[in-house]
Amino acid sequence: MTTHASNELMSSIDPDRVLAHLDELAQMTSDANGAQRLCWTPTWMRAVEWFRRLLTATGAEASSDPAGNMWGIVKGQRPGLLVLGSHLDSVPNGGRLDGAYGALAALEVLQAAAAGPPPHIGIAAVAFADEEGARFGPSLGAAGLTGTAEPEWANLTDGDGVSLHEAALACGVDVERANSASARLPGIRAYLELHIEQGPALEHSKQHLAVVTGTVAMRRERFRFEGAANHAAATPMDLRHDALAAAAEVIAAVRRIASAMPHATGTVSEVRVLPNLWSITARFVELIVDMRAPTDDGLADLFRQAYDVAASVGAALGVRFESDLIRQHSAQPFDAHLVGLAERAVRQLGLEPTQLLSGAMHDATVLASALPAVMLFVPSRGGVSHVPAEDTSPEDLRRGVMAIGALADLVLGEA
Amino acid sequence: MTTHASNELMSSIDPDRVLAHLDELAQMTSDANGAQRLCWTPTWMRAVEWFRRLLTATGAEASSDPAGNMWGIVKGQRPGLLVLGSHLDSVPNGGRLDGAYGALAALEVLQAAAAGPPPHIGIAAVAFADEEGARFGPSLGAAGLTGTAEPEWANLTDGDGVSLHEAALACGVDVERANSASARLPGIRAYLELHIEQGPALEHSKQHLAVVTGTVAMRRERFRFEGAANHAAATPMDLRHDALAAAAEVIAAVRRIASAMPHATGTVSEVRVLPNLWSITARFVELIVDMRAPTDDGLADLFRQAYDVAASVGAALGVRFESDLIRQHSAQPFDAHLVGLAERAVRQLGLEPTQLLSGAMHDATVLASALPAVMLFVPSRGGVSHVPAEDTSPEDLRRGVMAIGALADLVLGEA
Repeated sequence: MTTHASNELMSSIDPDRVLAHLDELAQMTSDANGAQRLCWTPTWMRAVEWFRRLLTATGAEASSDPAGNMWGIVKGQRPGLLVLGSHLDSVPNGGRLDGAYGALAALEVLQAAAAGPPPHIGIAAVAFADEEGARFGPSLGAAGLTGTAEPEWANLTDGDGVSLHEAALACGVDVERANSASARLPGIRAYLELHIEQGPALEHSKQHLAVVTGTVAMRRERFRFEGAANHAAATPMDLRHDALAAAAEVIAAVRRIASAMPHATGTVSEVRVLPNLWSITARFVELIVDMRAPTDDGLADLFRQAYDVAASVGAALGVRFESDLIRQHSAQPFDAHLVGLAERAVRQLGLEPTQLLSGAMHDATVLASALPAVMLFVPSRGGVSHVPAEDTSPEDLRRGVMAIGALADLVLGEA
Repeated sequence: MTTHASNELMSSIDPDRVLAHLDELAQMTSDANGAQRLCWTPTWMRAVEWFRRLLTATGAEASSDPAGNMWGIVKGQRPGLLVLGSHLDSVPNGGRLDGAYGALAALEVLQAAAAGPPPHIGIAAVAFADEEGARFGPSLGAAGLTGTAEPEWANLTDGDGVSLHEAALACGVDVERANSASARLPGIRAYLELHIEQGPALEHSKQHLAVVTGTVAMRRERFRFEGAANHAAATPMDLRHDALAAAAEVIAAVRRIASAMPHATGTVSEVRVLPNLWSITARFVELIVDMRAPTDDGLADLFRQAYDVAASVGAALGVRFESDLIRQHSAQPFDAHLVGLAERAVRQLGLEPTQLLSGAMHDATVLASALPAVMLFVPSRGGVSHVPAEDTSPEDLRRGVMAIGALADLVLGEA
């Protein structure tokens, strides 16, 4: 049998300490417009250094890896590592919980582990670098750990023309060496991540904790419609080539197509119209079309339907249609055994677990391609995230910390 | 019988002189971005002063009226005035023909009248002020002549905060006295205006001259859709309040509704989306909806259908819909007898006249509410106008000048 009691960690976890740390971090790194922990900036660095001091204060060994991830590790009785984590970087003008909540919950679990007898296997708390990809695109930290960072990412530039290579180097990270962070990968037995939902599903169903079964397939494309600028007052309807009339049919169709598939989403919320004058029909319209579906095949089917509408309305109106890919990822299911353990952990809190598919990507999405991973979600007030109003009730925040602790105990109990 | 031969004017008209004047004006008042004769600016004033010198050179009496219109008058044998004209002001970065063509054709007819024996009644060539309303909105010149300028127009401001009062005063026009220009109205027997079509209908039907039977009813509204900003990746379709999804249904519907009514147009080509980010559903969308129809009742029916679509899609998606009026004018038929004379004039050139309804407003639209008026249109290459590429073949420009001369002869023959 195990020498490590199955609720060893839980008994030492203090969720109020996580809430206090969240407040401290917000005071350190937010302004009137919200959280400003954009990755590879001095504010983000300050958050990471603060996290390092907290890791060290637990008695754990703290160190950063070649991908810019900050690790705190408590050694175990046997080889192997249970990793908990999330990220400290935020979008510009972001919320105080996105990422920080999971990273500070991981710190709390690590603190509990450090306070007790050595666990069966090692326990790590990690703050991944650049989960948001808000400045350059890719999520470098998780990619580095899984060895999937691409060398050409170094040349990506932000709005000011600064390259990812330069920005990361200023924080001590050489992008071209990021994949050497994957040296640690083989020892990792499981990855657990606690996060806010960032959507309204839990609040809407009046539930407090979700076990996330995976991340949906996502594809984002640029749809371009090329028509002609005609005088709006003087051009008969049948002689127009109105790019916005064509694009509008596609925007409306994307909503209908996605609504018809369970658990799919389809969003067009970014539009560029030229010349965008009431008196001249649009000669050019660009839409960003983001669609997500539970399976890769389902997603391909959604886009096939959208292309069909765009091609047929384009042919009818004499408007040329083209599209190109911005970003995509395959559907990424989480580990079925860990999903089962997570449900047990939620029941230990006296709650009935609910399952959710995440529409957003997370560090866990990247890691799940390489190792067993699972996530827990707590509700987001009003379903809002990536804005200063992002919030979760203290009760739900506390429950989430206890649940991730219970889950860690269950995983350790099997180790 | 008349003492004035019915082709007296036509025999003295030289259409090449109109083309030469158009070139001279373009060289004086255009730059690389097109015509810059925005009303109440030094460039427009320069054009008007040049026009005054040309009027005077014909032997006519030239003077400006209290609404800023520049008149040249050749006295007739009896009281009464036949007026020909158009405008010299342009939109910013406009074309060289819009307005200038008709004003310079009127000058050429006046020159022919001044060169011969006194006509039965007086003949006037007028360049109306501010037809485009491109800077402040209203068309002050034609409104002043019909006594319909509104006192509060004086307070309208341009993008730089300059008031119409100030801008006009700098050009010697007191907006609050503009309506005293209407003292001349009772003597006017008819108004004739030659203009480019500004649309593709003539070119498309391979015709060279159109008799304009009137101006359609027009109504322009601001449609506002208020939804909610939701995380695009994390918000299920049935929990969204996507303002752009609702607006797109209305954009598509406006095209269908207008296409179903003969000679109607419906245009949405100016859109504002907030926050206009792919990752967040649109919380607010504003559309400018411009619709035109041959009759006022028809136009009301078009808007009723558009409101119905907006209200029902708004209710279905939880998006609030409101609209308000920007501008409207009633359908304005031209004088039936003058339309008949204009068709005779076109036949005198060996062409089969075609009838068109104008979708755009003109000085003639304003004047037709107070006196008999009619217009002739020549084709616009590619149907484009209000852009530097605005153009018409020299042959069509010459034919238009001869046709308006022939029409003036026919009107004088009946005077």
